[in-house]
Amino acid sequence: MENLSQSQPMVGGDGEHSYAKNSSYQGGLVDAAKELINEAIIEKLDLKISGFDTSKTFRIADLGCSTGPNTFFAVQNIIEAVEQKFLLTEQQNPLALEFQVFFNDHCDNDFNTLFKSLPQSRRYFSAGVPGSFHGRLFPNSSIHFVHSSYTLHWLSKVPREIVDGISLAWNEGSGQCNRFVKEVFEAYSTQFKNDMESFLNARAQEVVHGGLMGLVIFAIPDGIPFADTPPGVVFGILHSCLVDLAKMGIISEEKVNSFYVPMHNPTPKQLEAFIQKNGNFSLERMEKLSNLKTNVLHSSKCSASMMRAIFEGFIKEHFGGEFLDQIFDHFTTKIEENHSILGEKGSNMIDLFLLLKRIIS
Amino acid sequence: MENLSQSQPMVGGDGEHSYAKNSSYQGGLVDAAKELINEAIIEKLDLKISGFDTSKTFRIADLGCSTGPNTFFAVQNIIEAVEQKFLLTEQQNPLALEFQVFFNDHCDNDFNTLFKSLPQSRRYFSAGVPGSFHGRLFPNSSIHFVHSSYTLHWLSKVPREIVDGISLAWNEGSGQCNRFVKEVFEAYSTQFKNDMESFLNARAQEVVHGGLMGLVIFAIPDGIPFADTPPGVVFGILHSCLVDLAKMGIISEEKVNSFYVPMHNPTPKQLEAFIQKNGNFSLERMEKLSNLKTNVLHSSKCSASMMRAIFEGFIKEHFGGEFLDQIFDHFTTKIEENHSILGEKGSNMIDLFLLLKRIIS
Repeated sequence: MENLSQSQPMVGGDGEHSYAKNSSYQGGLVDAAKELINEAIIEKLDLKISGFDTSKTFRIADLGCSTGPNTFFAVQNIIEAVEQKFLLTEQQNPLALEFQVFFNDHCDNDFNTLFKSLPQSRRYFSAGVPGSFHGRLFPNSSIHFVHSSYTLHWLSKVPREIVDGISLAWNEGSGQCNRFVKEVFEAYSTQFKNDMESFLNARAQEVVHGGLMGLVIFAIPDGIPFADTPPGVVFGILHSCLVDLAKMGIISEEKVNSFYVPMHNPTPKQLEAFIQKNGNFSLERMEKLSNLKTNVLHSSKCSASMMRAIFEGFIKEHFGGEFLDQIFDHFTTKIEENHSILGEKGSNMIDLFLLLKRIIS
Repeated sequence: MENLSQSQPMVGGDGEHSYAKNSSYQGGLVDAAKELINEAIIEKLDLKISGFDTSKTFRIADLGCSTGPNTFFAVQNIIEAVEQKFLLTEQQNPLALEFQVFFNDHCDNDFNTLFKSLPQSRRYFSAGVPGSFHGRLFPNSSIHFVHSSYTLHWLSKVPREIVDGISLAWNEGSGQCNRFVKEVFEAYSTQFKNDMESFLNARAQEVVHGGLMGLVIFAIPDGIPFADTPPGVVFGILHSCLVDLAKMGIISEEKVNSFYVPMHNPTPKQLEAFIQKNGNFSLERMEKLSNLKTNVLHSSKCSASMMRAIFEGFIKEHFGGEFLDQIFDHFTTKIEENHSILGEKGSNMIDLFLLLKRIIS
């Protein structure tokens, strides 16, 4: 029943290189979205929605939760806002409510670490749900609020035509970096569009009519070449680092040329168009977030650590675990050398908050 | 929100000593209970029960699921029986139904292994639920069928009076083995009664009225001294093995004397009385199971491996990981030496199937 996907989990556990220890930028986004989610629930959530009206059980799903702790903060925000709304509209003690939270990520996510770090003082029933959010995860009309932060840029797979290398025009051995070629970028863009459609269709079945989705998406501005955006710069650095190591004979050139990361950043306009075309959700709000944790990116060491927590799984799967430290040591040096360029391009990255409401048909 | 518990998980992963590889006896029980669960669903399940009647989503919980594969077989049986019942009574295609399965175990269970081994061809939405089944795990009236096999003999903790050693009469340094003393056995028995009450009270809130529970319980006959039952013999062997190693100076005597396993086997009469006293469930059926996999117990090597998969967590936590192999090598030898005694006492063990129905109040 689960969609197989090429995505790799963030680094598990709670060690030095773990996502849990290297995701404070992403945590800043959860903070930045907090007020918007509060407003969304107070203004846009109808507590008469299906399932909640009679059972008084509110079901929340965090999609792409990784190992925490950001997912716990996000969920806590949502619960407090629902309690506040319930108190305001029903004039009843919110302790009458029950919450069930579904923490979702790929089946190779480190759920053991996630479960062990669940807050002791939580007032919700927890469940971990393994599987790709590009497919179905929950029964029909069973979820009241979907949250997903910094996850939708992960594609379900590298576009097939790129892996197969059917177009010789751009299949000339530049691997991950060949996405600077227009055709390649477009193939990624099409894959994103298809994945977004799958995501919205699956959620349309799972979210009760009138239910909400609060999404934080890693976007880039319209009309800016990918190479001039922070993810573009990072992919460039990663690629040149891999090329260096191939030249030193540490990893093979063939491996470098066949290394792809299934990631794509859409633009706000594209997102708006995809949601409208899908037709199951109304776009209630779209807003640029101000992340107070951008200082993480000012430190090249922190940037490199964050990127290791994100990319390590892909590198390990493709190149094997024995070169990890060499690759990331070199990557850290290169990030340090190019840190000013990353800073200059910083404005070409948008952390976008979207509020969607399941259309009542 | 989670109850803290002293229970240790079965050995995780899929290695030589894992529960996944050493639980064929428990698998035999799932097989043995299959027909009884089928009958229970066909004869006793009312498909007009709350939540299912409108949503057509049937929610199943397997409590104490460990790492599989037995849990997957058990769940598949239940789903097939519900589909058959739906076809019989509604004359509709069972594909109209959706199933959501909650796999529960302690938060230190190896959920990562469980999730990776989920059957590819399953037709249900899966979720892992970390926490002790002696406390609440799910929202009010949200579960239609609870399954739990060979789990309820695990206590939430070693009785406090035993750990504290307040009664000098039996606190004379025989550790785990002092449960052959009447007062100690009674303390375990009282703990079981309290835990069973907590279990039934939690489930009474979670199971919809008219919902079912199919439980397989590791019981002993009424009126037989604990020392004459297979678990009694095994505890005796384990204790004498630990005493031997203490004499050799490998582990400390003090550690041996403070080693307790939170496990207790009730009798059928006791179970009947606890369920009746609790009053939330009717006992629809109680039957001795015939396990076709008892051949596992005929091999002393398999018996020892099964017991290692079960007890390793407790031994490791108490004595540290470095003595594991020594302890279990010696344990295996002792099991071999005493295998005929275990065989003789075999009939003093009851694998009991209970069918409970949530009383419609």
